[in-house]
Amino acid sequence: MKAEIIAVGSELLTPDRMDTNSLFLTEELNKLGIEVVRKSIVGDNRDYLSAAFKEALDRVELIIASGGLGPTEDDLTRETVADLLGRKLHLNNEILRYIEGRFRQLGREMPAVEDGGRFIALLPGPPRELKPMYQEQVLPRLQRRSSNIRMFHRELRVAGMGESGVEQRIKPIYTRYADVSTTILAAPGEIQIHLRMWTDDAAHAQKTLDEIAQGFEIALADRIFSQDGSSMEEVVANLLTSSGSTIAAAESCTGGLLAQRLTSIAGSSSYFLGGVVSYSNELKTAWADVPPELIQTKGAVSSEVAIALAEGIRRHVGSTLGVGITGIAGPGGGSEEKPVGTVHIAVSHAAGVKERGMVFPGDRDAVRWHASQLALDLVRIHFLYNGGEPPARIAKRS
Amino acid sequence: MKAEIIAVGSELLTPDRMDTNSLFLTEELNKLGIEVVRKSIVGDNRDYLSAAFKEALDRVELIIASGGLGPTEDDLTRETVADLLGRKLHLNNEILRYIEGRFRQLGREMPAVEDGGRFIALLPGPPRELKPMYQEQVLPRLQRRSSNIRMFHRELRVAGMGESGVEQRIKPIYTRYADVSTTILAAPGEIQIHLRMWTDDAAHAQKTLDEIAQGFEIALADRIFSQDGSSMEEVVANLLTSSGSTIAAAESCTGGLLAQRLTSIAGSSSYFLGGVVSYSNELKTAWADVPPELIQTKGAVSSEVAIALAEGIRRHVGSTLGVGITGIAGPGGGSEEKPVGTVHIAVSHAAGVKERGMVFPGDRDAVRWHASQLALDLVRIHFLYNGGEPPARIAKRS
Repeated sequence: MKAEIIAVGSELLTPDRMDTNSLFLTEELNKLGIEVVRKSIVGDNRDYLSAAFKEALDRVELIIASGGLGPTEDDLTRETVADLLGRKLHLNNEILRYIEGRFRQLGREMPAVEDGGRFIALLPGPPRELKPMYQEQVLPRLQRRSSNIRMFHRELRVAGMGESGVEQRIKPIYTRYADVSTTILAAPGEIQIHLRMWTDDAAHAQKTLDEIAQGFEIALADRIFSQDGSSMEEVVANLLTSSGSTIAAAESCTGGLLAQRLTSIAGSSSYFLGGVVSYSNELKTAWADVPPELIQTKGAVSSEVAIALAEGIRRHVGSTLGVGITGIAGPGGGSEEKPVGTVHIAVSHAAGVKERGMVFPGDRDAVRWHASQLALDLVRIHFLYNGGEPPARIAKRS
Repeated sequence: MKAEIIAVGSELLTPDRMDTNSLFLTEELNKLGIEVVRKSIVGDNRDYLSAAFKEALDRVELIIASGGLGPTEDDLTRETVADLLGRKLHLNNEILRYIEGRFRQLGREMPAVEDGGRFIALLPGPPRELKPMYQEQVLPRLQRRSSNIRMFHRELRVAGMGESGVEQRIKPIYTRYADVSTTILAAPGEIQIHLRMWTDDAAHAQKTLDEIAQGFEIALADRIFSQDGSSMEEVVANLLTSSGSTIAAAESCTGGLLAQRLTSIAGSSSYFLGGVVSYSNELKTAWADVPPELIQTKGAVSSEVAIALAEGIRRHVGSTLGVGITGIAGPGGGSEEKPVGTVHIAVSHAAGVKERGMVFPGDRDAVRWHASQLALDLVRIHFLYNGGEPPARIAKRS
């Protein structure tokens, strides 16, 4: 089955607002094997609204509309659709009266119209009203109508590689599977790989997706940090929790972003003891015991100071792991020797310390985000190799 | 003039990606007095693509399309439009050949078609290619065609009030201006008010928008933190910089979010000296001199501990201002007496300390964000009243 999504509301045609409901709806429809072939965004204007529904009715069996159901004059969706259905589908008067009656009677409830092959659902615009109404009222009806074909989805995430590098390594694998659609998306600090398969054979889908994921694991090795779409924070939180480890952070250029990400996970107080944001050199010494001479001789942004921050904060806090970050987020503060984007990150633990230096591209936000992502990735890698040395391919990156 | 925007690309019909180009394009078109009446998102499918352009051509003079211009087989926009224009607009053969020739010759350059009243621009999908191409090639042509009517826009931001509270206070003002469109948007921790006016009289527009903004200032008083759409971080950074003040933070439940926001602004090292994320009680004592007895008697989440954190970190760091935050972000850790969402925030300075306790609604992310927003707002309020007492209306909120 094919579907179109129509988002109604003049505010969605301003530069301030986007229709985000369609992402939720697309995901839900795809799960039922229903493909979304078009999305339209229309203002609260009777003619444009009528045209949008009319065009969609000519093309697809299923239309899901959101918004334009409020009690105010602006909200025309219901009226327009009732009007259009009366004329367009040549419903007999009995059905038309039934629909109109239902619309009136339901008030803000979900008005849904089924007519033979066609199904139109009119949902409210606010996501917290739309989502439960979809689940309770639309989903069961669609399940009855939809075929046995379902969409099976898997998301893998990769850190420390670019989009083209990932593409190059996994292309020989995914191109062998004509029935699986592979999408590679670049997100800040990570690459997301989406596998989607439309089939009525669940066992076959699981087996195929497992097979591809295993192939990707061979091609990308430890660069894959997530096999189920979980975030880097979640992955690191799981590793810390399951190993009973604790962590502390001493940050400079990331300004608290690493601590904020580590503590964004519920229950983080079991592994995160504390962190410092030591912007000034004095505080690097006061809070993480970085020797002032070291800062003077090597510079605040140096591998030596990153290591001293990591070791100092671990000692100070008494945690299993300590992370130190120092760098130049920009736009100012760069030099020829240490350009904007230069970041040194160290992870300290009882068995020793690992440090990595990078020059990240992009603006202040990008540099800070990339630095926090690499810091989390280094913690992940520490657990992956149980504190030992990673194999040569990874080691040579440091 | 009215316009439609068509975003082309099958990836925009998955749950993973959104068409964000249309926000940029809408803002630009609005500036020229051009209204966007519909947005469509279509996959790389010849029939759907053709239908989208055909429908739009029937309705509006201006179509801006993005995406589907790459060299691969999937990218059909150019071909479809050339085909459609040949049939649809009954262009004479000479023009058609010219267009087709241009398309071939331009390669990835912006193909634009002007035909009497109609204008179609086909822009590439990646935002960093689309934006300069719009500015360089589309904007000048639209400027020549568009009327003298322009859109004038002003954005005010409000903290510490809900959407309906703001609406109630400003409605008597904005409803007096029939020629100004007012949109009230709820964003995390703030309400954004957009004023838009379409006119060919710039002086009149400025005067009218000033008048409304002044009215809002009387109605909302110090709850307006931004008159030009700048963020709370930017406003606070400006106040700290222009007064030559420095700041330090001792955070618990926000986990570094306040420090991260304070340091997200370029040049923040001139006012932000450092911060601690003292999750454990021991670190509240070690880093911000919070007496262990105070934590034991009052609890870690209490106004007394918030004040001690603010005063302790200010003393420790030697900054002009110190901020202390302690609370329960959830989902666990709440009690009947101190439910999830309970947060105490204090701002300490030489003249004394101010504390505020709140119970924020929402999930972990929401509680943390609201807490950081209120902390920044308290710093702003400190400067607003020059460290003195705010008027009664504000004071009674604490």
